Amino acid sequence: MREDAKTPERHARRMAAKQKIMQARIDNAQKEQGVLLVLTGPGKGKSSSGFGMVARALGHGMKVGVVQFIKGAFSTGEQAFFKNLPNVDYHVMGQGYTWDTQDREKDVKAATEAWAIVAKMLADDSYDMILLDELNIALRYEYLDLDSVLDDLQARPSKQHVIVTGRNAPQQLIDLADTVTEMKVVKHAFKDQGIKAQKGLEL
Amino acid sequence: MREDAKTPERHARRMAAKQKIMQARIDNAQKEQGVLLVLTGPGKGKSSSGFGMVARALGHGMKVGVVQFIKGAFSTGEQAFFKNLPNVDYHVMGQGYTWDTQDREKDVKAATEAWAIVAKMLADDSYDMILLDELNIALRYEYLDLDSVLDDLQARPSKQHVIVTGRNAPQQLIDLADTVTEMKVVKHAFKDQGIKAQKGLEL
Repeated sequence: MREDAKTPERHARRMAAKQKIMQARIDNAQKEQGVLLVLTGPGKGKSSSGFGMVARALGHGMKVGVVQFIKGAFSTGEQAFFKNLPNVDYHVMGQGYTWDTQDREKDVKAATEAWAIVAKMLADDSYDMILLDELNIALRYEYLDLDSVLDDLQARPSKQHVIVTGRNAPQQLIDLADTVTEMKVVKHAFKDQGIKAQKGLEL
Repeated sequence: MREDAKTPERHARRMAAKQKIMQARIDNAQKEQGVLLVLTGPGKGKSSSGFGMVARALGHGMKVGVVQFIKGAFSTGEQAFFKNLPNVDYHVMGQGYTWDTQDREKDVKAATEAWAIVAKMLADDSYDMILLDELNIALRYEYLDLDSVLDDLQARPSKQHVIVTGRNAPQQLIDLADTVTEMKVVKHAFKDQGIKAQKGLEL
């Protein structure tokens, strides 16, 4: 699926285009510019941070798209909270979908269908911000073609913000991103001690 | 103000009490337990992550207190979004307050008044979660007595979650916390290139 993912020419072309965009951004330092933000690493707070930015954007009256490439099929607090708000277009990948199905074809299909929704948002400048929650997991398992994903991200409207969360962000996504934060575990008492995930914090 | 902040006896006493609490938590691994979570480090996403958890908690019908020990007097998206929601008790420290006043007495007064509000929340088990946004800054400048803050945090109801954000979390707070994430800057194109803070992401 990803035979050409690391083609040097394609990478160079993308980086040259990226450089041009960045130069334009520097030249227009006071203008509104779309940011590609990646939140990765093993620490707590990646998805929460993405949803906090969604809240912030909504506070400014912006229109937001959310697509969750989630790990489990459990219902989450953020879904309950954001799903029915005005100005939010909220999608959860694959009904009843889990990473535990051990059915790769089904997983690829679910991820591909979810990306089709994302691609539409990325082509529509009425979306001010798009949160792609746990996309990195789908990329890591190669359920999506990384190059197509990067091309769609790069071709988006210039003022559109995109936030990508999940561990193990691929290096090519980090290269393309404007801002990357790695969440590092300093201490995770609960995990270490087998205490269950807490409502509000992790669910 | 903090003469006794590093008294070894006080620290030992606190850690012994903490150890007892943690042991009880292990013994009750399947129960709901209040978590003290610290989000620190220079990377983007600390406050956003705290607000994402607030949203998540609200999605579960929990009651949340928010006190912002913010750096500037600007209006923020999260304030616009959360301030008037039901189940949220939202406070911003000091009317027109900024860290730029260069009036230490005024800053200490504002921080002290804000902490009085926090202390009330920490003594009230109807609050399921309390977000203390940018508290670490007030601690760093010693606008608050660290030991009193830690004592109030430790004495809170056992099921109450507290989230503390801000760079440079003091070591004693990290010691007391259950979970600590450090947000590391992998890349911050905008900051490096002097491009202005973006609505929705940073404001």
